[in-house]
Amino acid sequence: MTFRQRITLADGRELYYFDSDPGGDRSAVDLRSDLPATSTTSQVRWDPLFHTHTVIADHRQTRTYRPPADLCPLCPSRDGLSTEIPASDYEVVVFENRFPAFSLQAAETVPLVTDPPFRSAPGVGRCEVVCFTSEHNGSFSSLAPRQARTVIDAWADRTRDLGAQDSIDYVFCFENRGEEIGVTLSHPHGQIYGYPFVPPRFFNAAHTASRYRDRTGDCLQCVLLNSEIEDGKRIVTMSEHWVAYVPFAARWPYEVRVVPLAHLPDLPALDDAQRDDLAVVYLDVLRKFDRLFDTPAPYIAGWQQAPVRQDRDVWHLAAEILTIRRAPGKLKYLAGSESGAAVWINDVTPEAAAARLRGDDPL
Amino acid sequence: MTFRQRITLADGRELYYFDSDPGGDRSAVDLRSDLPATSTTSQVRWDPLFHTHTVIADHRQTRTYRPPADLCPLCPSRDGLSTEIPASDYEVVVFENRFPAFSLQAAETVPLVTDPPFRSAPGVGRCEVVCFTSEHNGSFSSLAPRQARTVIDAWADRTRDLGAQDSIDYVFCFENRGEEIGVTLSHPHGQIYGYPFVPPRFFNAAHTASRYRDRTGDCLQCVLLNSEIEDGKRIVTMSEHWVAYVPFAARWPYEVRVVPLAHLPDLPALDDAQRDDLAVVYLDVLRKFDRLFDTPAPYIAGWQQAPVRQDRDVWHLAAEILTIRRAPGKLKYLAGSESGAAVWINDVTPEAAAARLRGDDPL
Repeated sequence: MTFRQRITLADGRELYYFDSDPGGDRSAVDLRSDLPATSTTSQVRWDPLFHTHTVIADHRQTRTYRPPADLCPLCPSRDGLSTEIPASDYEVVVFENRFPAFSLQAAETVPLVTDPPFRSAPGVGRCEVVCFTSEHNGSFSSLAPRQARTVIDAWADRTRDLGAQDSIDYVFCFENRGEEIGVTLSHPHGQIYGYPFVPPRFFNAAHTASRYRDRTGDCLQCVLLNSEIEDGKRIVTMSEHWVAYVPFAARWPYEVRVVPLAHLPDLPALDDAQRDDLAVVYLDVLRKFDRLFDTPAPYIAGWQQAPVRQDRDVWHLAAEILTIRRAPGKLKYLAGSESGAAVWINDVTPEAAAARLRGDDPL
Repeated sequence: MTFRQRITLADGRELYYFDSDPGGDRSAVDLRSDLPATSTTSQVRWDPLFHTHTVIADHRQTRTYRPPADLCPLCPSRDGLSTEIPASDYEVVVFENRFPAFSLQAAETVPLVTDPPFRSAPGVGRCEVVCFTSEHNGSFSSLAPRQARTVIDAWADRTRDLGAQDSIDYVFCFENRGEEIGVTLSHPHGQIYGYPFVPPRFFNAAHTASRYRDRTGDCLQCVLLNSEIEDGKRIVTMSEHWVAYVPFAARWPYEVRVVPLAHLPDLPALDDAQRDDLAVVYLDVLRKFDRLFDTPAPYIAGWQQAPVRQDRDVWHLAAEILTIRRAPGKLKYLAGSESGAAVWINDVTPEAAAARLRGDDPL
């Protein structure tokens, strides 16, 4: 069980403590008297040519950029330094981002533009930060399974809460890890975005899954999963409830899809046993990424959940974990083919990547 | 006028010299006797979940990586060093890439896989390198208009030639500039990819343009262009035949679309006056990117041409030039939202970007 307590920060933002024991004292007050009110100027603009949304958020240019460790805003508060977390220690904490790409208040300050071909809406939605541990020098992969389980419960809790907002159509829980990914705070943390639209990658996948089911009656993710298990070459690890494999058409040098055997739409749908098992499998996969190279690989990890209000029955939950490092000291850059044409060219075969991740094939 | 001469390199690859005067002696022979035959193991794999192709090309891991300047393979050959270009000087040269993501010979060595859900085809196609100048320390932006015009003629020539191949469905001419984009050779050069499919970004745009025309009778690119001219806020530069503007929903901190006023599908369709004018406008835009920051901005520039065999009448040619630098020393990274969900979050408003590019708003 995970227990949640809610407080409000000095500027009115919400913060949630997630604890493995009930009844802890979480009443510490945010003492920052000089905290400016959070605001957003985010606009969701429509690109008619490429049929997609772009978020324009120029207030984020001033966000905190690589602070020294002794000023880390994600560490617990201590005498003389009030951080984002008022408590002197914590297990897992989630709070509203001070520099959000989306805010539920955006409609109050940002205009709606409806002059074709120029269409833009306020960046309504929500951006939250998830601190995985109070240990500044830790990482998700160094958590104990019990702590990872608390993070999973926090993700599920936030997915349910944000999905209950009328303006939010998709909840994306993700982690960017490593300077090479552009991470500006090194304290172990992830993010949760409540988007006011279904992101194009997932809109596309929902559409594809829906057509596949109409045609065959089957879940495409289930079919892929069973085929990967049967083929075996790209399997990274398996457990009672979960399978981790490198997709046959992986875009990134090392990319893993973590999928529950049960056909479930999102994190809140996981039962206790599936969550406990996920904590173990997910940590195993992250540690395999840590061991790929001489130094821990930078990575992006994200949960592909069902959209809040559409295609929920055809959707099958999965996590995607990828690194942009293709060899020691060498990154996979998104250049002309990827950024210009959206064609990924991957220099590592998925079969070789799976073998390396399993540890079959030493560097 | 631009004059083309063709030779064959020691390993059988084709090379074309493009010169502004006829009759130059381009008979220099490639003296490299130890050049291994080029081969590709490229596979085009199908991702059924996200309905897209990925190119798996593991032979490219060994490609030339940041050689010292005195061993640059794109400089002219000289006594004691045979480079990719046998001549002792050149204007513009195009040759087949030694480490191609696609090759017209791929079908001879790479298997076809058709076991659902795993589908993969040989990476048939063509990858060419375009050397913009023999000056190792130059850049596209430092070319004279006459030299830029020769590059434009080379792009048009290669677009026509590659499009005539049955296996090629799309010709993409692009340039990656700067180490921050992952460029491994600093000599000024670009690339041309002949894809065996229409890249998803352009497939999507062709579909959108086609539906728009069915509904309204108009070209969407023409409508956008006229609206941008009328609005004016995002215009970067204009000439008799071309307009450069920052798109209303730009994804990147500084992104410019360069569009001909005439509704034309691709580079071969441009007449002499349009090409001469393009050389001037394109150089102007690149120089504006060079002046954005303390050091020249890294950029990706690519030509959005009509697909070879579909939607040619609805397509309206454009170039896209973008930088990933959002401020001096700060890059726009593709992290969770962009790489995981395909939602771009841009910290610079397109209106501010256009003003900065025009020079209205000093740093």
